[in-house]
Amino acid sequence: MNPKSKQIENYIEAHIEVYLERLRRACAQPSISAQNRGLEEMAELCVEMLKDIDVDAELVRANGPPVVLGRVVGDGQRSLLFYNHYDVQPVDPLDEWETAPFEAVIRDGKFYARGAADNKGAIVSRICALEAYLAHHEHLPVDILWVIEGEEEVGSPHLDQFVDRHADTLRQVYACVWEAGGKDARGRYEISLGCKGLLYVTLRARGADTDLHSALAAIVANPVWRLSWALNALKGSDGRVQIPGFYDSVQPITPAQREALAAWDYPESETRDLYGIDGFLGDLSGERLKEALIFSPTCNIAGFHAGYGGPGSKTVLPREATAKLDFRLVPDQSPEEIVAQLRAYLDAQGFSDVEIVASDGEHPVSGDPEHPFTQSAVRAAERVYGHTPAVLPMMSGTGPVHVLCGQFGVPIATAGVGYSGSRAHGPNEHIHVADFIEGIKYIVALLDEFAA
Amino acid sequence: MNPKSKQIENYIEAHIEVYLERLRRACAQPSISAQNRGLEEMAELCVEMLKDIDVDAELVRANGPPVVLGRVVGDGQRSLLFYNHYDVQPVDPLDEWETAPFEAVIRDGKFYARGAADNKGAIVSRICALEAYLAHHEHLPVDILWVIEGEEEVGSPHLDQFVDRHADTLRQVYACVWEAGGKDARGRYEISLGCKGLLYVTLRARGADTDLHSALAAIVANPVWRLSWALNALKGSDGRVQIPGFYDSVQPITPAQREALAAWDYPESETRDLYGIDGFLGDLSGERLKEALIFSPTCNIAGFHAGYGGPGSKTVLPREATAKLDFRLVPDQSPEEIVAQLRAYLDAQGFSDVEIVASDGEHPVSGDPEHPFTQSAVRAAERVYGHTPAVLPMMSGTGPVHVLCGQFGVPIATAGVGYSGSRAHGPNEHIHVADFIEGIKYIVALLDEFAA
Repeated sequence: MNPKSKQIENYIEAHIEVYLERLRRACAQPSISAQNRGLEEMAELCVEMLKDIDVDAELVRANGPPVVLGRVVGDGQRSLLFYNHYDVQPVDPLDEWETAPFEAVIRDGKFYARGAADNKGAIVSRICALEAYLAHHEHLPVDILWVIEGEEEVGSPHLDQFVDRHADTLRQVYACVWEAGGKDARGRYEISLGCKGLLYVTLRARGADTDLHSALAAIVANPVWRLSWALNALKGSDGRVQIPGFYDSVQPITPAQREALAAWDYPESETRDLYGIDGFLGDLSGERLKEALIFSPTCNIAGFHAGYGGPGSKTVLPREATAKLDFRLVPDQSPEEIVAQLRAYLDAQGFSDVEIVASDGEHPVSGDPEHPFTQSAVRAAERVYGHTPAVLPMMSGTGPVHVLCGQFGVPIATAGVGYSGSRAHGPNEHIHVADFIEGIKYIVALLDEFAA
Repeated sequence: MNPKSKQIENYIEAHIEVYLERLRRACAQPSISAQNRGLEEMAELCVEMLKDIDVDAELVRANGPPVVLGRVVGDGQRSLLFYNHYDVQPVDPLDEWETAPFEAVIRDGKFYARGAADNKGAIVSRICALEAYLAHHEHLPVDILWVIEGEEEVGSPHLDQFVDRHADTLRQVYACVWEAGGKDARGRYEISLGCKGLLYVTLRARGADTDLHSALAAIVANPVWRLSWALNALKGSDGRVQIPGFYDSVQPITPAQREALAAWDYPESETRDLYGIDGFLGDLSGERLKEALIFSPTCNIAGFHAGYGGPGSKTVLPREATAKLDFRLVPDQSPEEIVAQLRAYLDAQGFSDVEIVASDGEHPVSGDPEHPFTQSAVRAAERVYGHTPAVLPMMSGTGPVHVLCGQFGVPIATAGVGYSGSRAHGPNEHIHVADFIEGIKYIVALLDEFAA
């Protein structure tokens, strides 16, 4: 342990109130990308908070809200990328919040606010860590390039434009500290090394010009049946996706990845209780459950809407039916390939009448548990959290890992201050204050790894 | 022709503005049974309008909204039943209405309002007809018993209670002038002699306690998939219902019924144009198309709702999925038998988790084209419309024919003021003003048949 490390930990503990006030200030600024609300103000607040700790920060403008770009020149040979996002999810259903989402409140050792876990807690923990480190060292042991975007919650539609302009810099980065993460349902810290990809499509079937009396179902085709049959062709009750070629690009799990998966003690019963389910999909458990969560692609119906949905009965033959599907992809599936396979398959199955509208997808990236950067992240976590963290080669969710890092071969490791009960995206989002403090110490410990 | 008949026709034409104002008043009162909206007010308005023309009218109360019961003592040996309903369908999707659904508007010779065709236009046409007849005759040539219920659009769940209390009277009725009807796409008048039955069910599949992040679709069952697979088990793309026993009770078409069907010149191309479809279900045409429309049972999805349906994308694993289905039944299928078959089949197919909520169904009734009452109805139509009407042994829609008439052996013939483009149940419901006037004359002509 670096001799100054204990001093820094004491310094952090002495500054808790200051740090919580910083977090409160960051969470007080609404910044909902889906509603284009408060993004400019939040970006400016990020710049101000970075400048306050002597990080050279600017707003990079292109299409979409500005990207906050920070730079710190250190004395090491390497450059670390920090990736975060300053936007948050919408706050509805508002009436389920116990306190207002943008008025941070601490209750029972928990800090409640929209963005506390996802992702402002992580941003502020990093700000506090850099400040604490620089209060005890003349320089950081690495250069830092810090990217804080404002559209992560809507799929980072303009991040590729930023990346294109900064590709030469990004290519030379050693590794990236990814935006978020935290603890599982048993309080164990988790580090993820990648993200599943995503393809989001809207499927639509159309019938007559208008809704008709359902008596006509005897002679007029019903688009709800058409869409239901088309969906059934995509995936049957065995759970396997039927689109030809869908699994062709799926890469085998490497021995190191499988070893990491085996070392992961997944909290099955706690997770079932949390979600209120009797069992997992297909009665999965143990290694197969973990493998499905981390390495299986999915074909999920996120919404299906057609016809009458009100109280009582209405006998109508609906004019159209719409389903929204998300496919989570694993290496080396690509959203462009899958949407082409989907179109060809629906045509071949007689569903050329079913329209597909695809949004820009994201490519999957999985990581290497044996990479030296992963090992640094693990050692830092062991020091701060007092246990060996779980290492997940890929998280089950999606983020722009490929566009920012994966395409340049830059490895990532997540670092966040949330936990499995944080309700990111939901009402009453919160973090434990203790996890926020540990998150600050973790970033310091990670910097120490590079000073060694 | 009765010598006074021409005088009555002139009288009707001189009173068009008064009659349209009556209809406007009836349509201005919302009366949506599915939402329990305005039913009491509408029932009282019916009583008031009947009393205004000296019909002895009262509200009969039991469970559900009141039944309007009117009586006129005539000088004939026979008693005719008039059946109508004062309730209407919900008005959604509201934004597709060109004018507000309960503010009647006349445009281009058409009268637009929810209920114009189904069924307030028919009610008001009968009121005007009785008034016009009694302005020229001392008595009606028949006794009239007039039943106007308020739950037809939700399957008449309490009409059996009314019928039980008035069974002795209903049993002695000669025949019934059924609630609605009108013209086909070529302007030819149609008379129907029965109704398909109905079974309406809500199917529901449930997943986790709350909506989850869709990344969890890798390990948590999605109720939208469950429901979609269950639906697919009910009916495949060949259109045949897969529920074992579903077709077992279907009776053969009688020779007289088949003759009536053959004489029916179904306006195929006009109907396709009207609905904006390229072809009929399964490329049906000719005799098979007519037979399907009149004599085929159906399994229709009236609504399917689950998860996210807003703009853009939301990656969610929905907590539940709900579908509403209507089955149109033909003699001698029974809703009680079909729902039992449905439950057994879903269980056998592994869908015991899919909940079924069935509403009270309705039994099917088909009629005899050779019955003397049918012939009277045909002659009246020939006089008013100037052509031989189509006679349909059963209509493709549903009504409580069995409970009110069929179980007592009372024959029915429809009489209404709509046409195939009336959009009953849909946005912009309307009738032709000219059809409304002819509908009044038709009731007068039918009364004349009994005076002869």
